[in-house]
Amino acid sequence: MRVTDIRHVAVPLTGAVANAVVSFERHTVSLVVIRTDQVRRGRPVYGAAFNSIGRFDQAGILSGRVVPRVLGADPDALLRTDGPGLDPAAVRRVALTDEKPGGHGDRAGAVAAVELAAWDLNAKLAGEPAYAAIARAHGRPVPRDPRVPAYAAGGYYGDAGTAAEQRAQLVAELERYRAAGYTSFKIKIGGAPLATDLARVEAAVAFAGDPERVAVDANGRFAPADAVRWAAALAPYGLRWLEEPGDPLDFATLGAAAEAFGGPVATGENLFSRQDVTNLLRYAGLRRDRDVLQMDAGLSYGLTEYAAMIAALEDAGLSRAQAVPHGGHLLNLHIVAGLGLGACESYPGVFAPFGGYGETPVTAGEIRVPDAPGFGLERKPELAAHLDRLTA
Amino acid sequence: MRVTDIRHVAVPLTGAVANAVVSFERHTVSLVVIRTDQVRRGRPVYGAAFNSIGRFDQAGILSGRVVPRVLGADPDALLRTDGPGLDPAAVRRVALTDEKPGGHGDRAGAVAAVELAAWDLNAKLAGEPAYAAIARAHGRPVPRDPRVPAYAAGGYYGDAGTAAEQRAQLVAELERYRAAGYTSFKIKIGGAPLATDLARVEAAVAFAGDPERVAVDANGRFAPADAVRWAAALAPYGLRWLEEPGDPLDFATLGAAAEAFGGPVATGENLFSRQDVTNLLRYAGLRRDRDVLQMDAGLSYGLTEYAAMIAALEDAGLSRAQAVPHGGHLLNLHIVAGLGLGACESYPGVFAPFGGYGETPVTAGEIRVPDAPGFGLERKPELAAHLDRLTA
Repeated sequence: MRVTDIRHVAVPLTGAVANAVVSFERHTVSLVVIRTDQVRRGRPVYGAAFNSIGRFDQAGILSGRVVPRVLGADPDALLRTDGPGLDPAAVRRVALTDEKPGGHGDRAGAVAAVELAAWDLNAKLAGEPAYAAIARAHGRPVPRDPRVPAYAAGGYYGDAGTAAEQRAQLVAELERYRAAGYTSFKIKIGGAPLATDLARVEAAVAFAGDPERVAVDANGRFAPADAVRWAAALAPYGLRWLEEPGDPLDFATLGAAAEAFGGPVATGENLFSRQDVTNLLRYAGLRRDRDVLQMDAGLSYGLTEYAAMIAALEDAGLSRAQAVPHGGHLLNLHIVAGLGLGACESYPGVFAPFGGYGETPVTAGEIRVPDAPGFGLERKPELAAHLDRLTA
Repeated sequence: MRVTDIRHVAVPLTGAVANAVVSFERHTVSLVVIRTDQVRRGRPVYGAAFNSIGRFDQAGILSGRVVPRVLGADPDALLRTDGPGLDPAAVRRVALTDEKPGGHGDRAGAVAAVELAAWDLNAKLAGEPAYAAIARAHGRPVPRDPRVPAYAAGGYYGDAGTAAEQRAQLVAELERYRAAGYTSFKIKIGGAPLATDLARVEAAVAFAGDPERVAVDANGRFAPADAVRWAAALAPYGLRWLEEPGDPLDFATLGAAAEAFGGPVATGENLFSRQDVTNLLRYAGLRRDRDVLQMDAGLSYGLTEYAAMIAALEDAGLSRAQAVPHGGHLLNLHIVAGLGLGACESYPGVFAPFGGYGETPVTAGEIRVPDAPGFGLERKPELAAHLDRLTA
């Protein structure tokens, strides 16, 4: 088998929104295709993936560094030895030729998109869904008809109106998620004064009927003292988790907020390497029985590095059920099913065309993982149109 | 004053070399120019800078994210209020609009090149060298006729030959540096077995005449156990420092190596944010009386963030004399002189056209900082040619 080309396109997000820190209006994502000389059922086989959501397209790093290295490598050095297709670890290694250690930022997304496309390719060559290929490659049983728990993330701040009107708007939003089949929810905090945020939390808990069905997300916006203040004020509610109270690399503040909050804290979506996760595990004082790790393979050099993160987590005595990846999309749905992780997030109606799970219905808070070959990105019409152009 | 355009070009490095981890043959650097409507002595005034050396050009992030944000901002929001020119902190803030926290990698270089160009612009508008503008902006006395200590970094592994021939090649290389005016040296380790490395170190110390004139650099290549093994074996020599024995984010391994080595350890060139440096200071057990911090403004969002790193270092009880930036070029020469830091590195003859200090002679291991306006990049003929094109 030979790779014949690697193409990519920067796709703007639509249906975008703002969190407490950033607006996604001008966000883009790199959709990547690895083309090959292989044919199945009369059609050329390719692998496709993207660099998750939230960190912009990586057209420059793909075109200038990652793609030329992979296309210029000894083709045999990229091949799996245990089946048809590419060795994702070799793809990752070649993609990082002449790159210095540390500085795990944008390039981690560029490499991830290509590495994950290799997983899509391998699954398609085997004629199976990605979760099956992922499970097998990691020595795990292939799940039959897997279903993944998913919560609806949103809970945005409304545009205007009185506090009561804003709470009504929040509840109306959660109503839509419930009508779509979700039973648990995550809402934003940190974009309003504490009293306003507490009233929002109370409205969400009253709606959900159980505080363990409501998580809150500060998107890393609090200064250290505020992170602890919000954590202490939120402690009595018994929420599902408190996400990213402070800077994602400020492990001391996370530890202090976790202590003040008592319940689970969630973090990791802005850590893009195994070494950064090891530091989190070493220094944040995470608790083996509760805290939640949200690293995202699509932002983190792909599944090879992500699996190393999960191993680090288990080495530290945590469970892989505590892994709930950032990025509500098909790539992570298959990864969660294949690796036996805890749950997925979902941003109903936003971050199109990458967000969401295609036509798959949500039932009682669970998503059935589709059985299309690979990650099944072709099932999403807007992505399929881009894929047609990249593979034409 | 108005910014009229921001242009950039990806310039390949020439005279390139390999360290223990990467080859610089295909490396590139982004040279950035901020054009304005200001005129001095009949010529338009611009600011110029680049994203240091070693982390590739950032054409994609500049064109897709950083430049459109700065050009699209309210022009008045970018201006200094204490003099003519741009507010570098405002430039940095605008350049990071809609960017999530964490993930300090490639984008830190893209933002740095633009932020540092603002410093060049401000100094040129004031008709003074950058070190003077930098000193004044940080409440420090403007040094008169400053001279900065610089060591010659190199000490590469030769191509072939016996161990004795390789040592002779190393000494011949150090001879060239001494002939150019340098009195202290840094050599590579970690690309050969331990015994070979120790023989190289002994040859370098014999040549330099004093082990405090020889530092060694592993470029982060060692696994944790090897880092400590090399550190212990190198301890008896009394070298100037041991640089980056392990992964730059593995603070525990650095601490263990520092303990085994006894003498100063040096690190920081692969940490690109104040928060990463705070973690280094919190967790690596650095010693206030000896260790060396090598962060590089050109890789780290620019001088605003770099000055915050220096403040963090002083808050932790270290001295700014312990700051010796990575990146042997004019930007860091002015920053070291303006902020009163410890020393500069120099890579004689390599990393052209960005490396080196132009026509400035080295005398007894010191470099006199040129008095040309701004960073004086125009004094380097190859850069001047690119600047002519970017400002035409």
